[in-house]
Amino acid sequence: GPHQLPCDILPNDPTPVCEWKDPEMLRDLLDLELGDSSEPHEKLLQLCRDVARFSVKTNHPRFFNQLFAGLDHHALVGRFLSDSLNTSQYTYEVGPVFVLMEEVVLTKLRAVIGWNSGDGIFCPGGSISTMYAMNLARYRAFPEVKVRGLWSLPRLALFTSQECHYSVKKSACFLGIGLENVQLVDGIFPFMVSATSGSTVFGAFDPLDEIADVCQKYQLWFHVDAAWGGSVLLSKKHRHLMTGIDRADSVAWNPHKMMMAGLQCSAFLLKDTSNLLKLCHSANATYLFQQDKFYDISYDTGDKSIQCGRKVDCLKLWLMWKARGTRGMEERVDRAFAYTRYLMDEMKKREGFQLLLEPQFVNICFWYIPPSLRGQQGQEGYEEKLSKVAPIVKERMIKKGSMMVSYQPRGSQVNFFRMVVINPQITREDLDFFLDEIESLASDL
Amino acid sequence: GPHQLPCDILPNDPTPVCEWKDPEMLRDLLDLELGDSSEPHEKLLQLCRDVARFSVKTNHPRFFNQLFAGLDHHALVGRFLSDSLNTSQYTYEVGPVFVLMEEVVLTKLRAVIGWNSGDGIFCPGGSISTMYAMNLARYRAFPEVKVRGLWSLPRLALFTSQECHYSVKKSACFLGIGLENVQLVDGIFPFMVSATSGSTVFGAFDPLDEIADVCQKYQLWFHVDAAWGGSVLLSKKHRHLMTGIDRADSVAWNPHKMMMAGLQCSAFLLKDTSNLLKLCHSANATYLFQQDKFYDISYDTGDKSIQCGRKVDCLKLWLMWKARGTRGMEERVDRAFAYTRYLMDEMKKREGFQLLLEPQFVNICFWYIPPSLRGQQGQEGYEEKLSKVAPIVKERMIKKGSMMVSYQPRGSQVNFFRMVVINPQITREDLDFFLDEIESLASDL
Repeated sequence: GPHQLPCDILPNDPTPVCEWKDPEMLRDLLDLELGDSSEPHEKLLQLCRDVARFSVKTNHPRFFNQLFAGLDHHALVGRFLSDSLNTSQYTYEVGPVFVLMEEVVLTKLRAVIGWNSGDGIFCPGGSISTMYAMNLARYRAFPEVKVRGLWSLPRLALFTSQECHYSVKKSACFLGIGLENVQLVDGIFPFMVSATSGSTVFGAFDPLDEIADVCQKYQLWFHVDAAWGGSVLLSKKHRHLMTGIDRADSVAWNPHKMMMAGLQCSAFLLKDTSNLLKLCHSANATYLFQQDKFYDISYDTGDKSIQCGRKVDCLKLWLMWKARGTRGMEERVDRAFAYTRYLMDEMKKREGFQLLLEPQFVNICFWYIPPSLRGQQGQEGYEEKLSKVAPIVKERMIKKGSMMVSYQPRGSQVNFFRMVVINPQITREDLDFFLDEIESLASDL
Repeated sequence: GPHQLPCDILPNDPTPVCEWKDPEMLRDLLDLELGDSSEPHEKLLQLCRDVARFSVKTNHPRFFNQLFAGLDHHALVGRFLSDSLNTSQYTYEVGPVFVLMEEVVLTKLRAVIGWNSGDGIFCPGGSISTMYAMNLARYRAFPEVKVRGLWSLPRLALFTSQECHYSVKKSACFLGIGLENVQLVDGIFPFMVSATSGSTVFGAFDPLDEIADVCQKYQLWFHVDAAWGGSVLLSKKHRHLMTGIDRADSVAWNPHKMMMAGLQCSAFLLKDTSNLLKLCHSANATYLFQQDKFYDISYDTGDKSIQCGRKVDCLKLWLMWKARGTRGMEERVDRAFAYTRYLMDEMKKREGFQLLLEPQFVNICFWYIPPSLRGQQGQEGYEEKLSKVAPIVKERMIKKGSMMVSYQPRGSQVNFFRMVVINPQITREDLDFFLDEIESLASDL
């Protein structure tokens, strides 16, 4: 079996995953209003207890609802330490340790990709990483955009897949490119391809080498959104899913997902060595980036960012990595794959669980066909009835607090569950429970 | 004298503000490299101690270097609690408490502005708030920009002042508008004015009522960057500086600055009640924002954001506000003004301190004229010599670790110091020390 991490030996938490209250009731329970006077200490403690009680326990081993889960205790200490030291990443002057540390962590992540040089930045989430990539791609193709705006450029287009994260669309809107120029329209200038390593719903990996060939031929910026899938690079056994990643121009990788660094921890990584990140984003504010400082001002990295103040997101990842080593991180990834395999095998032994496709990653997408619908596939009204199963089961599990898992429709495919297995505290017992519980919650449907 | 906050009675920390090491030396001292194996517990503790030791003590009462300072212990607890609960703000499902809490806090901030309805979002820093404002302004004027991009629009221009924060420029570049369209060029379509309440260097306040008149006349989006100055709204005595703020379309206000909520805590506030924030930014991802949920999906606020995952930034502010009450926050603002006044009065009693202008806020901008330059103003080489004073004094104070304060040039004005007084732990002794220390560090210049 997969390597047992220390946290495996902790007993699973008997508390519920959530204690559901509808918004009106929760508002009444919480006493959220802010008044003129200070509250006494005992009251503040009670408020904190209430906040914790009614919050979803995302670190619970039966929380399968998002692409983040679990809690690494070293990363958590790193967050407490960052919070207490309360500084910004923009200059060496106020963040000496963190400027150096960010560079070490980014260098390490680049090395895992297969780059021995380059650039990068921690930014507030994977969507902002997509925006960085799009802006750099545009700037490399047409540096005059920074001063003259898009009006001076031919109409631009970018290519991506149907399964890309919605941040590609958001970015195109935000950067003034427009939704209709995501995907190809005739007569416009293509400047970028955004591929996905680990799509949000299916956990699918685009064929990077083939896409790289096209990008190379047409000189397109090759961005890889590996926010979710990037962690497979840590695994010798599974990194083949991202063969060709070293040919990308930029990579987004969120260690707050599978690596459990804690929200937010999003690395945007660049192959570029021509200082593009700074050239594209700098505003040269003299009050912050004085040119006559007594130290080497190349350590004032803040002007690479689209932000001004930027919180410290490297320390939690760094401390966790120190505590586990690359091998410990690799084991975590391999374990997640192994447990996904286990769950899939168990699913196939049971009636009613129908996979949409064989998982490449740790996402398992499946319909649960309740007793009354079995054997009726193809009959009139089947899809309509099936589409109602996941929402009902989800409502029941949340109200019971037993577990949480996501569902969604996708194109012509009606509502199906997306199970993700990442938390290293998950045991086989939790996975067996997951299957039992789905069956139990849908037994009358 | 100003009201004494409880933290005033704490003795000032005798530790240095910083322990300066140049980058090469610090890299050697820190053992930052990440390896294959895990490090033992004792080693990890030592690494944490080193991180803390060589980090700048931004909560030290003699740290005057940035527009953030100090540490509110309730806000810090709020941060620890947010970290531990590790969730994202995007749906009620995974962030029930924080979705409601964010709305309460934003409503409170809007009420302070003078709005009894509206919208808003916590976002990663003031620069991103500027981008939100610009994107909304553009969208309100030309909703087709979201689908068709900037090519379908007339050339746009926006107005701002020389003293605006550099994020206005960064935003114009990032959104595809271009630097040359910040400020007016003939023949283009103006869509927005960005005014500043509390400019970064001088702490200056634009006349909001007059600007609002112009915006109203020409139907321009009126954004107020109050990232730094917004906190004066909490003070009955000083809020006149922002008379007219209720006429703005949007306001950026960073409680991580003067209110000491901790980095990052940035509110972007909107007067709009037509759901513009969502209309402008939504991508309608079905995997996250399912339409057939069992609860009121208007509580899934995530599609208003340009981010996907969004960390919880409201809890620290909320808990601090509960602990101090609006009156406690007001006292903090009034105290900062009073101490600024004290420092300015003391400065005027001493030879060598030359104010650039009378402060409106808690920024004091001044040259220190060292003994050898006194009485030489107007002589050849004076400005050149004066420009070197601040960098030398800064280097000396950092290497000594006695205090930290910022300096910068500004247009034709050579390097001057910008002192900011915000930390409620600052005592008159600290301010006297500040003046003594400048004199002492520059005594041979």
